[in-house]
Amino acid sequence: MSRPCRIAVDLLGAELPAADLLNGAVDALEQHPNCELTFICNRRELKPRVCASQRIVHCEHWVHEQDSLREVLSERTQTSMHVGMHMLQDRAVDGFVSVGSTGALMALGRHLLHTPNGIDRPAVIKEFDGRRRPFWMLDLGANIVRKPSTLHQFARLGVAYACRVGKVKKPRVALLNIGIEERKGPALLRDAAQMLDKSRDLDFVGFVEPSRIFDDTADVVVTDGYAGNIALKSVEGTVNFIRDVFLHELAEDSGNDAAKLIRKPARKRFRRLMKKLDSQRHNGASFVGLNGVVVKSHNSTTQAGMTAAIDRAVCEVELHVPEKIEKFFNKE
Amino acid sequence: MSRPCRIAVDLLGAELPAADLLNGAVDALEQHPNCELTFICNRRELKPRVCASQRIVHCEHWVHEQDSLREVLSERTQTSMHVGMHMLQDRAVDGFVSVGSTGALMALGRHLLHTPNGIDRPAVIKEFDGRRRPFWMLDLGANIVRKPSTLHQFARLGVAYACRVGKVKKPRVALLNIGIEERKGPALLRDAAQMLDKSRDLDFVGFVEPSRIFDDTADVVVTDGYAGNIALKSVEGTVNFIRDVFLHELAEDSGNDAAKLIRKPARKRFRRLMKKLDSQRHNGASFVGLNGVVVKSHNSTTQAGMTAAIDRAVCEVELHVPEKIEKFFNKE
Repeated sequence: MSRPCRIAVDLLGAELPAADLLNGAVDALEQHPNCELTFICNRRELKPRVCASQRIVHCEHWVHEQDSLREVLSERTQTSMHVGMHMLQDRAVDGFVSVGSTGALMALGRHLLHTPNGIDRPAVIKEFDGRRRPFWMLDLGANIVRKPSTLHQFARLGVAYACRVGKVKKPRVALLNIGIEERKGPALLRDAAQMLDKSRDLDFVGFVEPSRIFDDTADVVVTDGYAGNIALKSVEGTVNFIRDVFLHELAEDSGNDAAKLIRKPARKRFRRLMKKLDSQRHNGASFVGLNGVVVKSHNSTTQAGMTAAIDRAVCEVELHVPEKIEKFFNKE
Repeated sequence: MSRPCRIAVDLLGAELPAADLLNGAVDALEQHPNCELTFICNRRELKPRVCASQRIVHCEHWVHEQDSLREVLSERTQTSMHVGMHMLQDRAVDGFVSVGSTGALMALGRHLLHTPNGIDRPAVIKEFDGRRRPFWMLDLGANIVRKPSTLHQFARLGVAYACRVGKVKKPRVALLNIGIEERKGPALLRDAAQMLDKSRDLDFVGFVEPSRIFDDTADVVVTDGYAGNIALKSVEGTVNFIRDVFLHELAEDSGNDAAKLIRKPARKRFRRLMKKLDSQRHNGASFVGLNGVVVKSHNSTTQAGMTAAIDRAVCEVELHVPEKIEKFFNKE
């Protein structure tokens, strides 16, 4: 049997009780029987349920939203996020899932794990289903970007991911903006566009509007953390809304005989659609640009969301994502 | 018979040929037989098709994306946007639909038509369907906002719209942000939140994430033009994408007998859903805060989109939206 895939899961500070999130984690173990989970949480909340492939590291403190960068990095060093990140740094685990703040995860990850050659900051990346093929968007919320060169680095990280993980031969790169004309949007984006346009090693196709990202216009969509997070959450909100409208439509007809007849085939069809939708709303976005697998989970995640976030981390470990990204930059 | 509703439609600079957009306009006339349309376009492109309730004002120039504010306001004054806006200013028409640039429309509208008491800038507003009730979001792309007071004014405009047009008694106001915690997002938003929180006449409920706007968390969602446009276009893109996945699912089964049996009821159900979706993707967003009805159409609009934009303008005229907003501010 191959070496187990070891994932640390920081549960402190989540909206749901740790015990509920544990159930989600157990579902992930069913999908990945070779996985070993370490929960970083308050032992009193979880002890009775833990089985052989799960262990607990006790912790009572977590990074708060209001903590400053200095507090996160050098003062409050006993938090669950520190514990998990140190385990990853020491190779005691292969991946780390956290419900903590994205900004703090980025800062601490950058502080404790190194970034590839020529890359200053990691970014949150996510794969989306497009009409005919997938695409990747980054940064989805880890960085407040002030320099065009940061967006240029994100483009390179995105290309590395699309090439090495997504197996896209020559990824097309676009910058997310509110229009495709050269003069549109903030100066930061216009300057970044000029920089990208001059990069011979990148296939830059210009600006893309959020209304066109699903249309296979680019393989890598680059954005700053603010606009990226607005876009990501708008997509998620719309998908959830439409899904609920669906379910309501299905439920509405429950008293009707004709409806009963078609319910099964209709459900089958809806299920296929839901599957497509689900990929856009899955919890768990991973960092690219750190030499370790770090997955950010919503702190308001459901049980199923926790399963998805752990699944994301296991996949990244099994695909050797950080190693592939690292190699890409060493070869460049 | 009541007085006709007169709408000027600026077609110059659109992606589709004027003749195609005219077909969309004709569909709008069918819905609103009391409507009179004035097309501002190159006469050579449209002449043969025009009937009694339509006329043409010839124009060959339009505002270009690269035109500076000075050019728009005082140098290139022979554009189709000027012609339409002047017709509105002179009350030669009751509403104006333009495919031109949002920023230019905002600037020219503000220059030629006045704004209500205490309001410096108009904003683009749109009604969305939420889970149980509609909500309104502004600004969706007209302004680059630098001052918290501008967002405060948008909140007041949104409340005026929700009260007087949407008939919401005490609209709840939220600020769009990437998180709901006090410290989240740019300083502009945090300062605006403090300002809104202190306003006794506003029911401010805090930040809302784009993933929650459909959940009836607020009646008025306030945002700056950049984030608002990113959110709007992300919603539109997702709806279009899901719609196409639907249609594909329906088409896929075409050879299957069982599928044929259920197609009709399934289509009926899809249609109900589509109707709900369509309201999120309709072309045509109106300005609030100008003493005249101005509707911005995508310049890449389809024929059906043109119908929707004209329909939007007619509705605003018939509901006396600018007069209601004006009164709200005079009474305050």
